[in-house]
Amino acid sequence: MADQLPSRSENFSEWYNTIVQKADLADYGAAKGTMIIKPYGYALWENIQAYLDKRFKKHGAKNAFFPTFIPSSFIEKEKDHVEGFAPNLWLVTAGGGEVLEEAYAVRPTSETTINNTVGKWIQSYRDLPLLLNLWNSCFRYEMRTRLFLRTSEFLWQEGHTFHATWDEADEYARAILFDAYQDFYVNAAAMPVIAGRKSEKEKFPGADITYTLEGLMGDGRALQSCTSHNLGHNFAKSFDIRYLNKNNELAYVASTSWGLSTRSIGGIVMTHGDDKGLLMPPRLAPTQIVIVPIYRKEEEAARVLEAANKIKNDLDDYRVELDAREGLTPGFKYNDWEMRGVPIRLEIGPKDIEKNQVVLVRRDTGEKKFVPIAHLLDEVKTMLNHIHDTLYARAKKFQDDNTFIVDSYDEFKERTAGEGGAGFLMAHWCGDRACEEAIQKETHATIRVIPFDYETEKGKCIRCGNESRGRVVFAKAY
Amino acid sequence: MADQLPSRSENFSEWYNTIVQKADLADYGAAKGTMIIKPYGYALWENIQAYLDKRFKKHGAKNAFFPTFIPSSFIEKEKDHVEGFAPNLWLVTAGGGEVLEEAYAVRPTSETTINNTVGKWIQSYRDLPLLLNLWNSCFRYEMRTRLFLRTSEFLWQEGHTFHATWDEADEYARAILFDAYQDFYVNAAAMPVIAGRKSEKEKFPGADITYTLEGLMGDGRALQSCTSHNLGHNFAKSFDIRYLNKNNELAYVASTSWGLSTRSIGGIVMTHGDDKGLLMPPRLAPTQIVIVPIYRKEEEAARVLEAANKIKNDLDDYRVELDAREGLTPGFKYNDWEMRGVPIRLEIGPKDIEKNQVVLVRRDTGEKKFVPIAHLLDEVKTMLNHIHDTLYARAKKFQDDNTFIVDSYDEFKERTAGEGGAGFLMAHWCGDRACEEAIQKETHATIRVIPFDYETEKGKCIRCGNESRGRVVFAKAY
Repeated sequence: MADQLPSRSENFSEWYNTIVQKADLADYGAAKGTMIIKPYGYALWENIQAYLDKRFKKHGAKNAFFPTFIPSSFIEKEKDHVEGFAPNLWLVTAGGGEVLEEAYAVRPTSETTINNTVGKWIQSYRDLPLLLNLWNSCFRYEMRTRLFLRTSEFLWQEGHTFHATWDEADEYARAILFDAYQDFYVNAAAMPVIAGRKSEKEKFPGADITYTLEGLMGDGRALQSCTSHNLGHNFAKSFDIRYLNKNNELAYVASTSWGLSTRSIGGIVMTHGDDKGLLMPPRLAPTQIVIVPIYRKEEEAARVLEAANKIKNDLDDYRVELDAREGLTPGFKYNDWEMRGVPIRLEIGPKDIEKNQVVLVRRDTGEKKFVPIAHLLDEVKTMLNHIHDTLYARAKKFQDDNTFIVDSYDEFKERTAGEGGAGFLMAHWCGDRACEEAIQKETHATIRVIPFDYETEKGKCIRCGNESRGRVVFAKAY
Repeated sequence: MADQLPSRSENFSEWYNTIVQKADLADYGAAKGTMIIKPYGYALWENIQAYLDKRFKKHGAKNAFFPTFIPSSFIEKEKDHVEGFAPNLWLVTAGGGEVLEEAYAVRPTSETTINNTVGKWIQSYRDLPLLLNLWNSCFRYEMRTRLFLRTSEFLWQEGHTFHATWDEADEYARAILFDAYQDFYVNAAAMPVIAGRKSEKEKFPGADITYTLEGLMGDGRALQSCTSHNLGHNFAKSFDIRYLNKNNELAYVASTSWGLSTRSIGGIVMTHGDDKGLLMPPRLAPTQIVIVPIYRKEEEAARVLEAANKIKNDLDDYRVELDAREGLTPGFKYNDWEMRGVPIRLEIGPKDIEKNQVVLVRRDTGEKKFVPIAHLLDEVKTMLNHIHDTLYARAKKFQDDNTFIVDSYDEFKERTAGEGGAGFLMAHWCGDRACEEAIQKETHATIRVIPFDYETEKGKCIRCGNESRGRVVFAKAY
């Protein structure tokens, strides 16, 4: 299996496309640009959902459902929003054999339909905050698609919250960024990210501030890993959502929205994968441990399988597969599970049974360890944590090694030349949108994030030389 | 609150519409016939999902995702299927500002798109069975809609499985009917159901056999509560899905599909609700216990709230709300939570604190019980089980009282006359579709289910007098 994979270092893009399909994460759908998520990929998504859902609920958000079809007129109500989304809309124009009077947009995001509704729910300050989250799928027409990274339909969660004040909305948007998303990326996905906000040009259409986490993929390109928006009073004004405050005055609510999608799966693949295939972060891995029974003679099979089954039961706090497929060699199975990125392989054969031991093999380092069965539970727990830490440390080192302080536009252009990624380029920028656009045109690099420690060092804009309040993070991005 | 509800016995339909909205289960969406599921209703759906998902996984099914858009040509591939679904399709005809060459149907069900795909995945008997389940939303254009019961978009799960033989598919379809769906209705939703199969006229377009569970609602109308189809080789032949069997011969796979939707929420409301509002079955209730702190003087508030919070923590194995809203009387809160159908109300006031006790009040019987705090956990467990049993027994008695052995067509017509429901009418039928259609035309009653104990008693068709192999269940239905 492994020998049929393209080399990650030589052709990252082909490696990505091959591994996503070969490891049974996803496949292309029949409708233009759509994606089928296969059981192995969907199990990863379910683990992502479970991790995040708990954290959203801890922050008081409650799940709900809003319809997929949105009257086109709703989308048009917020000026920036319609400009941002109109080019990518899918339209339903007929139902039940009749042409509709007004076409429906197929949910590109639910701000408009939610804001059209919650006005009825919010009367006074007692009804605030209203904290909603939706797990659904989202539709944006795409010409050039790539599984998980850019498809015409993808799965995500979209949070929508309503608050008494702008400050409270801002606090909530940041809380989700840090306590839900950053916690998820660091502690579950083992992915280092840079937190900050988007420039005016890059922010969400209709937001006052867009907060983001930006990751660096194995080819040196950046991936926007989630966003959390302070929408201020923009949608409230467009949809006239006001409440009676404690002084009995009518005031506009302030709102947020925030989302993380199946794109995160693409991020996990591109951050941790290697030439052998996927490498699943242990806390999200659909299968954390695969047991491969080893026997040469048929008469050993029953005894080995019995022992393997017993171990599987002992490990029932973990997500374990026993690969009892007949007619396949252990070597074939090793490659197959390595390609799928299972963090720990557990081998057991007749000799191990005699010695009351098993062999554990780490997917990340290849390290092999003989472990007495009596210590197995402790060892597995420790090893999964070590793998997580190793994956994070590797990715952090890669990020650090590919983060460059750039002070001349020549160097900037040199680093961004060619087809590949350029890493994170920490450079001064004057704050002017025209300059930002010129840089993008000239180098294909965009401002990925204005980090939270912005304004700690003054300087001169990398391109125009005007004064800069701090370094921002440029990169070529997905 | 309660006094504003329509009477359930006098106007069941208005009662239903009012309670669904007033208890914050759902609301109408902006697009034609669509539904917003509010957090309280969605929490109920999440509990339904959790219960069923475990059982599907126990039967080996794995979750996956298939795109919402389906090329219209796919739907047309299976003759019966296209006839069944074409009239209710929603169509996407444009994307990204361009008119599409081929319109996409918005998923009315996924048989066609799945069958178009799995042919690639299934090569030999080793790839079987292939057991998939999807949690998604489903779109059928509806003119006359009703929240949860009939909307243009609803949430559901759709299982799709592929097997080596027709018999194996049949066995799986029945296993889901009994071990997942019937188990859910009886042991979680406290709803009695009649199991059996649909007549040829009523079965799923494209199925060999449609199994079903049929419930009887509080107004005497039947509700199809789920279906599980043995699709035989129909889709495999239309989509040419063949595998190499153990004899190295190409054979068509046999398949199943099975679904349960948010319609089940309508069923729960209509089975258990009463004039005070909803009555949530305890094992699915979003809130199982509501704590209402009781104090007259402000200086008692802190002490009572502290005790209430402590009890809430003690009960953390359950889904508990503490209603600490200020400025509302206990009486108002009682009505409010009764309307929402919370199974147990827990009252605690200064005197209870002195006596180390609380008061538990059952939503189903109104029964009040003083319970020493030391016994609270045991008492709550027992009481929730008793409420479940009581709800089931009540609903079963209602079903029994409204199930009639009918042997004359005059009585049949009498019982089905008028606007209301008619209960379950156990009557002989000749097996002829023309006769079935005539009965529907003349009485609005349809064959809901041919029960599994069919053929235990021969007789004469209720309408034409021809020979009948057994009684079937007629009803007026949702």
